[in-house]
Amino acid sequence: MKRSIYLKKTDWREARRLFRQAFEPVFPLPAEQITVPESLHRITCEEVSARIASPPFDAAAMDGIAVQAALTYGATQSNPVHLKIGADCAYIDTGAPLEQPFDAVIKIEDVEEVPGGITVTGAVPPGKDVRFAGEDFAAGEVILPENHRIRPVDIGAMLGCGMLAVSVRKRPRVGIIPTGSEIVEPGTCLKAGDIIDTNSFIAANLIREWGGEPDRTAIVRNEKGLLSDAISAAVAVSDVVMVIAGSSAGREDFTPQVLGELGTVLVHGVDLMPGKPVVLARIEEKPVVGLPGYPVSAFVILDLFVRDIVAMALGIVVPERRTVKAVLEVALPSKLGMDEMVRVKLRNEQGTLHAMPLKRGAGILKSVVQADGLMCIPKDKEGFNAGQRVTVELLGEVTAA
Amino acid sequence: MKRSIYLKKTDWREARRLFRQAFEPVFPLPAEQITVPESLHRITCEEVSARIASPPFDAAAMDGIAVQAALTYGATQSNPVHLKIGADCAYIDTGAPLEQPFDAVIKIEDVEEVPGGITVTGAVPPGKDVRFAGEDFAAGEVILPENHRIRPVDIGAMLGCGMLAVSVRKRPRVGIIPTGSEIVEPGTCLKAGDIIDTNSFIAANLIREWGGEPDRTAIVRNEKGLLSDAISAAVAVSDVVMVIAGSSAGREDFTPQVLGELGTVLVHGVDLMPGKPVVLARIEEKPVVGLPGYPVSAFVILDLFVRDIVAMALGIVVPERRTVKAVLEVALPSKLGMDEMVRVKLRNEQGTLHAMPLKRGAGILKSVVQADGLMCIPKDKEGFNAGQRVTVELLGEVTAA
Repeated sequence: MKRSIYLKKTDWREARRLFRQAFEPVFPLPAEQITVPESLHRITCEEVSARIASPPFDAAAMDGIAVQAALTYGATQSNPVHLKIGADCAYIDTGAPLEQPFDAVIKIEDVEEVPGGITVTGAVPPGKDVRFAGEDFAAGEVILPENHRIRPVDIGAMLGCGMLAVSVRKRPRVGIIPTGSEIVEPGTCLKAGDIIDTNSFIAANLIREWGGEPDRTAIVRNEKGLLSDAISAAVAVSDVVMVIAGSSAGREDFTPQVLGELGTVLVHGVDLMPGKPVVLARIEEKPVVGLPGYPVSAFVILDLFVRDIVAMALGIVVPERRTVKAVLEVALPSKLGMDEMVRVKLRNEQGTLHAMPLKRGAGILKSVVQADGLMCIPKDKEGFNAGQRVTVELLGEVTAA
Repeated sequence: MKRSIYLKKTDWREARRLFRQAFEPVFPLPAEQITVPESLHRITCEEVSARIASPPFDAAAMDGIAVQAALTYGATQSNPVHLKIGADCAYIDTGAPLEQPFDAVIKIEDVEEVPGGITVTGAVPPGKDVRFAGEDFAAGEVILPENHRIRPVDIGAMLGCGMLAVSVRKRPRVGIIPTGSEIVEPGTCLKAGDIIDTNSFIAANLIREWGGEPDRTAIVRNEKGLLSDAISAAVAVSDVVMVIAGSSAGREDFTPQVLGELGTVLVHGVDLMPGKPVVLARIEEKPVVGLPGYPVSAFVILDLFVRDIVAMALGIVVPERRTVKAVLEVALPSKLGMDEMVRVKLRNEQGTLHAMPLKRGAGILKSVVQADGLMCIPKDKEGFNAGQRVTVELLGEVTAA
């Protein structure tokens, strides 16, 4: 039985660059108009400018008395000025429009109320306690930049400036194809050899966090024809497609071959552990990623490759994770020639962070569940010694849907 | 015209403590069962343990040959052992179950394939390249702690351990009542004095980010009876209620009075700027917050009070924002006796962060839109001098839906 057991080991950063490059003509995705109140976490695809000024008119900034400032000039404690309600001045509440001829507001606690009017004992300048039209945003002023992720407060600012709709990047629709004759749906009564599909659910929920729209298909058995049909169907309706798994070079790993038949395999295999047997392909101008089946390998490829291409589809850059320095608690020998991503638990000991590596097997999803961060053993190092200071990327940051 | 123009100035942290305390008997909210694939960002309300082991059986960790380790003992380069496919050994793919009597896997690249069998030139120990049942999670092992926000990888771990449903905290339903005769829906043709409602949309989207379910009502005109009816109706169907605005002590500020009639006002007024005229009340064991109408005041109260009570309903603690030290670019005089929250823009100058305060008016929503962070001028300080080092809370962290 003949099988090709060797993958290439493309530098994984170079592989990612090649993958991005292949989609420069088609990404980011086009814009769509949506209503402002429903625009949370969407990405603007042009500068957003105020349609009208906010606030739209001059208004009282305090509860008090609207006056003509000129009538108060010369008022002192010993020489107070009397103003008639209705004729010379008017009660006004915070936010109410300041109407001609009034041009200033005196706080209610700074006047003496007398029958039919007020007594003012100090001059006020024009504009005193007035909130001027356009004080927040002038008409035409830029509210939000392009490629900006819309936050709750941005929604308020847009609405206040008279906007009802906003032009945002279409959400990338990401087809997720779980494959493997041994893979079964959660809830199936397990027979010997059955493996519950977990990777496609992790992928779908990461895609949600990254601003895409996951579209998980049924599980595809290990048959070339079925796989080919499923990929073609997904490519037709998706912006990005993932095939999980069958990306390696085993007897039943059809993914690389099928991707090559349907389109172009750009990369098969990178110098990354876990995650080495990734396939990066292009079919009909759509990016297609073949993921390895081990859950940690799949997670690493999702994090480093899929997240990047989804961000590119959205016209944004993946935010960098915060890093910390930590003292490595045990020695970590590693293979030369491969970048290894190690999951670590952090512990604060009298102000110094200590990093304890979790189990390194690609099958140990628990190592991701329990990790505080990720560290990389670079390919040009045979590992780290116990006590060495290492850089840890924090995983804990909450990402958004 | 008689009006009470003075609010008390309760220490705002004490006010928040009193508010929390009032709901200790009723929060956190009860649990509900939901399906695991739909549990993203929900909060566990008990420890989650594996129903079955993951993986559920011993399996090959590599593509190769399943063998009985004992048959390879003594094999060397010069004294190779021949094994017959079918009788002594079997081809096996990664993840496939390792069946009796096999107890080890030899990688395909480490054997010589000969017609009908393989030649082994080195002994392998039992368990070599085997992924044992329960290697990731043993049956009964704790997967997730209580009060944990479920991430994509957690969903994978739960499914892999045979779980279909998970017990999570009910999402707090938060009634949001926009009030004010001058307040109009976005899209209304504006007449003089009309103000577009923005606060309730900001509130609704923050509630989404914080894990609650916003329920915005129609705008309520400034009439006591209407306001009272709207609040009663919202309290009946919500876990938390917000009234925006009318929380101050102006002629038409009915919120404190109505809240007092329907329930108990716990706090009216705190030593916080912007945000001073907040009302914290309890009606039928539900927390009700009366927010000020200025957008920055409303934002500060949402951030410091509403977020806290929503977190309490969920059984979690609001995550602390990351802080940085920065050099203040201009002097910031401030009122004694009030904590002032100032929005600042940060600038990195040769590795040193500089903080430039944005406009301080409570009506300037732009100061929140453009802010990188918040700094507090404490009530016991008359402000800061230019060049002083200050602590800035970073706003940029992405929170999740």
